[in-house]
Amino acid sequence: MSKIPFTSVVNKLPATVPFVGPETLERQRGQQFSARIGANESSFGISPEAIAAMQSAAVQSSWYGDPENFELREALAAHHGVAMEEICVDAGIDTLLGLVVRMLMNPGDRVVSSLGAYPTFNYHIAGFSGELVTVPYKDDHEDPDALIAKAGEVGAPLVYFANPDNPMGTWHTADVVQRFMDRVPEGCVAVLDEAYVDFAPEGVAPPIDPSNPQVIRMRTFSKAYGMAGARIGYAIAHRDIITGFNKIRNHFGVNRIAQAGALASIKDVDFLEQVRREVATGRKQITDMADDLGLPWLPSATNFVAVDVGSGDRARAMLAMLQEDNIFMRMPGVAPLDRCVRIGIGTADEHALLERSFRSHLPGLPD
Amino acid sequence: MSKIPFTSVVNKLPATVPFVGPETLERQRGQQFSARIGANESSFGISPEAIAAMQSAAVQSSWYGDPENFELREALAAHHGVAMEEICVDAGIDTLLGLVVRMLMNPGDRVVSSLGAYPTFNYHIAGFSGELVTVPYKDDHEDPDALIAKAGEVGAPLVYFANPDNPMGTWHTADVVQRFMDRVPEGCVAVLDEAYVDFAPEGVAPPIDPSNPQVIRMRTFSKAYGMAGARIGYAIAHRDIITGFNKIRNHFGVNRIAQAGALASIKDVDFLEQVRREVATGRKQITDMADDLGLPWLPSATNFVAVDVGSGDRARAMLAMLQEDNIFMRMPGVAPLDRCVRIGIGTADEHALLERSFRSHLPGLPD
Repeated sequence: MSKIPFTSVVNKLPATVPFVGPETLERQRGQQFSARIGANESSFGISPEAIAAMQSAAVQSSWYGDPENFELREALAAHHGVAMEEICVDAGIDTLLGLVVRMLMNPGDRVVSSLGAYPTFNYHIAGFSGELVTVPYKDDHEDPDALIAKAGEVGAPLVYFANPDNPMGTWHTADVVQRFMDRVPEGCVAVLDEAYVDFAPEGVAPPIDPSNPQVIRMRTFSKAYGMAGARIGYAIAHRDIITGFNKIRNHFGVNRIAQAGALASIKDVDFLEQVRREVATGRKQITDMADDLGLPWLPSATNFVAVDVGSGDRARAMLAMLQEDNIFMRMPGVAPLDRCVRIGIGTADEHALLERSFRSHLPGLPD
Repeated sequence: MSKIPFTSVVNKLPATVPFVGPETLERQRGQQFSARIGANESSFGISPEAIAAMQSAAVQSSWYGDPENFELREALAAHHGVAMEEICVDAGIDTLLGLVVRMLMNPGDRVVSSLGAYPTFNYHIAGFSGELVTVPYKDDHEDPDALIAKAGEVGAPLVYFANPDNPMGTWHTADVVQRFMDRVPEGCVAVLDEAYVDFAPEGVAPPIDPSNPQVIRMRTFSKAYGMAGARIGYAIAHRDIITGFNKIRNHFGVNRIAQAGALASIKDVDFLEQVRREVATGRKQITDMADDLGLPWLPSATNFVAVDVGSGDRARAMLAMLQEDNIFMRMPGVAPLDRCVRIGIGTADEHALLERSFRSHLPGLPD
């Protein structure tokens, strides 16, 4: 280690982190990707109204964004039927997860998630010196009963549950999620990450009830609204939890351009509907392709599909070969999920490239 | 307190924070400001090249920004004559300050700043459970000797020094700053916040030497480059410190649009020169006005001027009256600095409004 007087927490953290962007791979390979379907980004762009609002806001972005995110929270409150005081906007769910961990977890606490679930949550747990305890997926679904049981067993202050799930794309129905929320142990708060819920069928999101101080709902403009690069998301929770966020968040931390884009996006209902349709169509294309190739796949309520290529070794080999063909894709990190590749719903052109590449490499995969 | 199981650190934090944006005041008053010269935002906009780059990037912002900020760090490294590995880009200095505190300060540590200096640093110290120890300004300047002495005395892991200073606009020359950097006590790291250095005359910024592991230089696109609302700034430091940042920062936390704007800004040298000239001209207008009104003022190396209206009571009364006239301005928070109002350099129109308002209210200020 260096002589820098880091805190012991930071000293113990690994210097390599699991965040490798497609640009990094492009630089390593000296070549741009032809299909970027690995980071769960939207291939269907941003609402034209939101783009116009963002372009206009860019001119005025010498001004800091409103630290209260007032207009956006007002619109979101109306949209969800909650009070403004029950919403915290920040620079994406990643930032909000960091704040949640800082707010509710003491160093050394054990915190519960699923083995193979969203790595950024785990990153914050480690970064604030907590201990991650995981439960396995059950039939490729997160297992809410096991999450609740484990949270009670280890006295976790936090339990993380994504519905729909990333990286598998599977989901539970609202009644199951409601049961999960009703059973969060005393002293524990559940983070219900609903980043992908806009792609899900009716009946997946339970009613939002911010009077429950044990649940934080996380939503984002990064996925269906297509604004990943703008960094804007929000938490809906009991107003006392929102007060906690306000005690520690960077009050001028949200990009003014993103505020304008999000406000326009939430009003452009037609665009969201159109993206939902495109994603549903794209999912069908991917699953048809998988059927054609004789590969099992998981039903998805997200903008990606987990396609089972048989084993982790085969999936890793396939990703490497796709990369050779300039296709950026990712896969789950741990067994048994890693027998799948995670195919982001792309454009028809991207799907055509993908299918060609799949057909050419599938026969050569290791047994 | 609520029943939310916050950490004791968060429980102890105040629910009210010192960040009140102009939009909040506008909502309270039901009226927009005619002059927004209170938040040290630039009244001279953003490079046209940067606006074009941002507007173009907005269309593509369905993609996350490059988590390495590679191209921007490459350009900044060339600009400053340092290595890329000695630069960390993040969503503004505020975000970087939070990371620095988290990286180097243990709970209970005493950390040194100047009494009345940048409140966001203090906010993070409190937010991570440190204790702020301050030294007074000396003749309206930060006092580097006193900062160093106090840092040694209390065993501070961090000492904060802004040059040029906010809120007074005063500065020290490079030799004084170099002496400060050379004398940082063992076990302590100095944060040298140079947010305003682009407005300063030659000979204010000492050479950048990232081989010194005890100094972190902070720079931003929020001030002279006019991109406050875009949230992008950077730290230059020893590569081991940059590794520390990389262990805990949100790797996908920087807005893709801001990345594009910053990259274009750094290349538009003419625009920066033009802003510098406009700010110098504007400073002269403000100090001429103050002379005319018989008010003392402080020489400034920033985009604002501290004008001495005689006492904190008079300054607060003046701000209230300016606000009645739809002029947004701020002032230092503590005595003896608070005998000044902090006038942001605005456009000629904003200055005309300001002068009219000043002339009308000055005679009515309390004794």
